[in-house]
Amino acid sequence: MAGGPHDEHDGKREPRGISLSRRGALGAAVGLSALGAQDAAARTTSSVDVVVVGAGFAGLTTARRLRASGHAVVVLEADERVGGRTKQGRIAGEVVDLGGQWVGPTQTRLLALAKELGVATYPQYDAGRNMIDIAGYRAVYKGETPQLTAEAMPEFAEVIGKIEAMAAKIPAAQPWQAADAEQLDAHTVESWLGLNTKHPAVRTMIRLMTRAVFSAEAGQVSLLYFLAYAAAAGSFNALISTRGGAQDALFEGGVWQLAQKMAAELGSAVVLEAPVQSIAQDGTGVTVTTPKGEWRARYIVVTAPPAIASRIQYAPPLPAQRDGLTQRMPLGCVIKVHIAYSRPFWRDQGLSGLVLSDRTEFGPWFDHSPTSGKTGSLVGFFDGAPAQRWADRTVEARRAQVLKDIALYLGDAALTPVEYLEEVWTRSPLNRGGYVSVPGPGVLTAFGPALREPFGRIRWAGTETAEAWVGYIDGAIRSGERAALDLAGQL
Amino acid sequence: MAGGPHDEHDGKREPRGISLSRRGALGAAVGLSALGAQDAAARTTSSVDVVVVGAGFAGLTTARRLRASGHAVVVLEADERVGGRTKQGRIAGEVVDLGGQWVGPTQTRLLALAKELGVATYPQYDAGRNMIDIAGYRAVYKGETPQLTAEAMPEFAEVIGKIEAMAAKIPAAQPWQAADAEQLDAHTVESWLGLNTKHPAVRTMIRLMTRAVFSAEAGQVSLLYFLAYAAAAGSFNALISTRGGAQDALFEGGVWQLAQKMAAELGSAVVLEAPVQSIAQDGTGVTVTTPKGEWRARYIVVTAPPAIASRIQYAPPLPAQRDGLTQRMPLGCVIKVHIAYSRPFWRDQGLSGLVLSDRTEFGPWFDHSPTSGKTGSLVGFFDGAPAQRWADRTVEARRAQVLKDIALYLGDAALTPVEYLEEVWTRSPLNRGGYVSVPGPGVLTAFGPALREPFGRIRWAGTETAEAWVGYIDGAIRSGERAALDLAGQL
Repeated sequence: MAGGPHDEHDGKREPRGISLSRRGALGAAVGLSALGAQDAAARTTSSVDVVVVGAGFAGLTTARRLRASGHAVVVLEADERVGGRTKQGRIAGEVVDLGGQWVGPTQTRLLALAKELGVATYPQYDAGRNMIDIAGYRAVYKGETPQLTAEAMPEFAEVIGKIEAMAAKIPAAQPWQAADAEQLDAHTVESWLGLNTKHPAVRTMIRLMTRAVFSAEAGQVSLLYFLAYAAAAGSFNALISTRGGAQDALFEGGVWQLAQKMAAELGSAVVLEAPVQSIAQDGTGVTVTTPKGEWRARYIVVTAPPAIASRIQYAPPLPAQRDGLTQRMPLGCVIKVHIAYSRPFWRDQGLSGLVLSDRTEFGPWFDHSPTSGKTGSLVGFFDGAPAQRWADRTVEARRAQVLKDIALYLGDAALTPVEYLEEVWTRSPLNRGGYVSVPGPGVLTAFGPALREPFGRIRWAGTETAEAWVGYIDGAIRSGERAALDLAGQL
Repeated sequence: MAGGPHDEHDGKREPRGISLSRRGALGAAVGLSALGAQDAAARTTSSVDVVVVGAGFAGLTTARRLRASGHAVVVLEADERVGGRTKQGRIAGEVVDLGGQWVGPTQTRLLALAKELGVATYPQYDAGRNMIDIAGYRAVYKGETPQLTAEAMPEFAEVIGKIEAMAAKIPAAQPWQAADAEQLDAHTVESWLGLNTKHPAVRTMIRLMTRAVFSAEAGQVSLLYFLAYAAAAGSFNALISTRGGAQDALFEGGVWQLAQKMAAELGSAVVLEAPVQSIAQDGTGVTVTTPKGEWRARYIVVTAPPAIASRIQYAPPLPAQRDGLTQRMPLGCVIKVHIAYSRPFWRDQGLSGLVLSDRTEFGPWFDHSPTSGKTGSLVGFFDGAPAQRWADRTVEARRAQVLKDIALYLGDAALTPVEYLEEVWTRSPLNRGGYVSVPGPGVLTAFGPALREPFGRIRWAGTETAEAWVGYIDGAIRSGERAALDLAGQL
């Protein structure tokens, strides 16, 4: 059943562009006001083969793929923009990413998409010496391996080795089927560290790494999820590394434009400011309700993270397994910050700009100077507990803290930036956090299979459902490809 | 500002009864259909001093108290009945509770309410011998202390002692302020058992107790929450005991009738089938939207559990702390079952009916024969993992499993009941589980203060917010009393 969406209102059939743009004009009021009462005039029902919920990389990939197979699709996006957990910003005249931004060499689906859409990458700057300040020991070092004290280093290497060995045994797509899944899932990373580390610096280091990777605290993250996440990336090392790892390269003009390009290609099939309120299934299809009207389809792909998808009303109700999962997959806490300077002054001292510290609220941060070389800039994060502490404060307070933290290591030049730009993901009602959902103990083993298990005509996508690079843009793309492939066989 | 609610629609003011019953008639369509479009005719705005969200014991108590102080209230309930996590059922001609049912001697607020409303209690039947079958050891015993093997008993006593000693140090109302809160909160009950038990029978016993108290698995529950829950009940022993503990007595005619009586007293101020869709705050008050119309109030008390309250749209949005909490407080998984027999045949063998086993899906179960003595009945639970496993199956399959499990211990007479009655709380979209929200590690210490922290004109109540008997009806009442007292000072 190919072809464009058609309008069933009054039995009239209109060409896609007109039909959708009319809905677009009618649905200007969104969010709260739209919830109260749906404009009666907007109650048109459009028919497509597949409704996709969410215009992030998962949803846009799903829609593109299905359309390429000749199927009619619509992408319903709650926000006023596409991109999901990627977002475009501008600071000191440069385009930057306020959400996901990096790509690594094994993130082959993201690299392929960028190549297809003609967007080039460039390496993350890592020349010069990194700084570290952990458990009272402050040092500069070169390369990927953080330097701790001489006594701590052997234990650090041993603990990383243990983590890698455990991760290598986890089936990334079904971590709940690991041999000792129940036991691993009964632990947090923190409780495991308590049993497997002696040196405070090692413990602190793994805590900081956990926080940077998951934007959550080691005491919140299930050990099984931690290991499965590493397994889905190939290794723990792949998660934390710059060169060769998940922070290897950046996109010229930002990664968000890939979403923008996909959306442009989909044209009026992407409907913004259309939060899905309900999904009703019957014997022949699904009816999807938004303040911008109703859609009827044979199948639906929900790409929103479980905690967001839980706000949709389902008829019939979700199975207990799936609803239970949505109650147990909180998003991490994160605030992303860009700071622009007139020049990358830290390079003068031979520093890479990268700082790992247990004495700051903000961090880690990275050199993010534009390739133009005209200005210097840093990008960094409040992650986990610090993101929580700072999310509900003012931008001025956060800015002051960020500059103070940077100055502590890079000097007073850090105190006079050209511009400050931030995105408080964890206070956004449509996102509720980032980068990814982070279940605590006992969730994956008990509810994990519900991550991808279809419910009638509903398929689940999104980076949380990926079988590789869970939590990353690459995983989102993979999940969309999987959903499209699955449905292409049904349509 | 006392007096009844008045209708602001068209500037007309109508007496409360007419106004509300009109809305009642208009809003017959609820749930999904009501979400799609609000009947334009129902868009009346009524004014009260306080809107209360949820007609469980917390909400009804709040409303009663505020009205007693002369304030105008409305209670908006999503369901078609009052009672929240209590609910009335009928089996073999007897009224029973499909939700909360027991009361203990230190649950003084619930006892006081029952006394005030003229409902008598009677003791839980505990004559005869209990049966136990743990880690391959099967026995019968008398009294409250479960019997394990002679080698296991000393360790069991020691572990219970450790739990009691740790719980005694937790400030029940602010567990995140315990001296070693972070460390306790990094563990699950299961990871703690791994470090503190040697005998498998002891481990299994604590796991079963955890499951019975929290309707969640030991590997899912934060150790800090586990201890705080015990602290809020006075002791761990108070949670697990029949005589003198939380399962001490029952209500003649069921506990649900207390909710019913409170609701009857509140009359048309309780509006059923009115799911709150949005709460908008401004300088002078709150506007609350439901499919049955809008309410305007000076304050609002939300008594729904965090995971349910997270589905409401808030303007301005919730602070990150509060939203973060709502993502991390899943409800436990529970199915409650009543089984009626022509007579309490187990009593013939001198058995109490209570069975604790690690070999059954269903259990524990208790003698629940009516005081009339006419028939015999049992009441029991699928809790935690078994509730998950069985929630999405058919009632016939569950019934067969329940009877098989009971027969294993009480004999083949168990296979021929007069009637079977169940409530699958964990598959109810309006409840999403029971008995209570059960956070995993790292939640209380990081997000706990948001449990009760007001957000502008919003107050939070419900048993999860109680300072004593968290998770019980008594705690719900206490939370309502606290919310009413707080607001009485502001109004």
